[in-house]
Amino acid sequence: MQYPQPISKLIEGFMKLPGIGPKTAGRLAFFVLDMKEDDVLDFAKALVHAKRDLTYCSNCHFITDTDPCRICEDKQRDQSIICVVQDSKDVIAMEKMREYSGQYHVLHGAISPMDGIGPEDIKVPELIKRLQNDEVKEVIIATNPTIEGEATAMYISRLVKPSGMRVTRIAHGLPVGGDLEYADEVTLSKAIEGRREL
Amino acid sequence: MQYPQPISKLIEGFMKLPGIGPKTAGRLAFFVLDMKEDDVLDFAKALVHAKRDLTYCSNCHFITDTDPCRICEDKQRDQSIICVVQDSKDVIAMEKMREYSGQYHVLHGAISPMDGIGPEDIKVPELIKRLQNDEVKEVIIATNPTIEGEATAMYISRLVKPSGMRVTRIAHGLPVGGDLEYADEVTLSKAIEGRREL
Repeated sequence: MQYPQPISKLIEGFMKLPGIGPKTAGRLAFFVLDMKEDDVLDFAKALVHAKRDLTYCSNCHFITDTDPCRICEDKQRDQSIICVVQDSKDVIAMEKMREYSGQYHVLHGAISPMDGIGPEDIKVPELIKRLQNDEVKEVIIATNPTIEGEATAMYISRLVKPSGMRVTRIAHGLPVGGDLEYADEVTLSKAIEGRREL
Repeated sequence: MQYPQPISKLIEGFMKLPGIGPKTAGRLAFFVLDMKEDDVLDFAKALVHAKRDLTYCSNCHFITDTDPCRICEDKQRDQSIICVVQDSKDVIAMEKMREYSGQYHVLHGAISPMDGIGPEDIKVPELIKRLQNDEVKEVIIATNPTIEGEATAMYISRLVKPSGMRVTRIAHGLPVGGDLEYADEVTLSKAIEGRREL
């Protein structure tokens, strides 16, 4: 005896999502059955629309429903500075800060020789091409502070610096509100390394 | 700056599901963007089909796509015994055991005066009506071993017993493979209370 077919199909669908096993999928599927029909229809439509209508900006590779994306099209933003991030979600995180008004470049990954991901597999060549535009004066590398992120930062910086362009890396150290006692050694050593005069 | 509208709609959709907050919803939405289009379409269809095609069996109130459900229609099953459970998922759990071949009755909840849920709000009246059928000889009450489940079991048993029908409750005690050391007091006391001669 199995679930009726419509519900087992729905459970299968949920199980394809990351971090959702059979138990959670079952719980979610039964929840859907108790949802209002309109809400379920909206959700189903949102799935299809997101998949069909979204694409990546041909300039900065940020996820977008218009090409070029709204950030690239906004002429009020500083055209002389490009912030390089690993992922579209990182752009949103940066924008939430409301203090950066330059351009972005989304790499869609980081260099990771262990996984066979080289610079050509992420959007590094596209970045280099953008940098040939004379308007750009600075590249801020905001890849994650992981081994892969650091390697990517290093690689891009070595590639770009010879042309005389300013290349910077976002600071690593104790997060605001963090506790020295609970900081890991690597973060602490980065915090000491990056100390500034008061 | 917000996400492009199609993705923020999808994130909203995921956030309506239980246990999914904004962070997880974002992660799931971005995962959907990287899924194959066919898989996304199948998932969207599964949502709509599950909501539209599924109903509750008019006899036992188990979730089904045919009415009466496959269990009620199966004449090979024992018609003289009804197992009362709180939820459709409990029927699946019972069926996985492959040892019970009677009927079911899904209450869709348990009596809970604290939440204002009385016997009329769950499928108790429907159960009583089914019991008027002369074929039924035994009612197994398999509601959860919680306060609400126990109250429901007690209520049904008091209602049914005067008619002389056999009313039983599934056993509570140590789960198989469980460890005495880690069992809570209530479970242990139930295990002692329900001890059987060897």
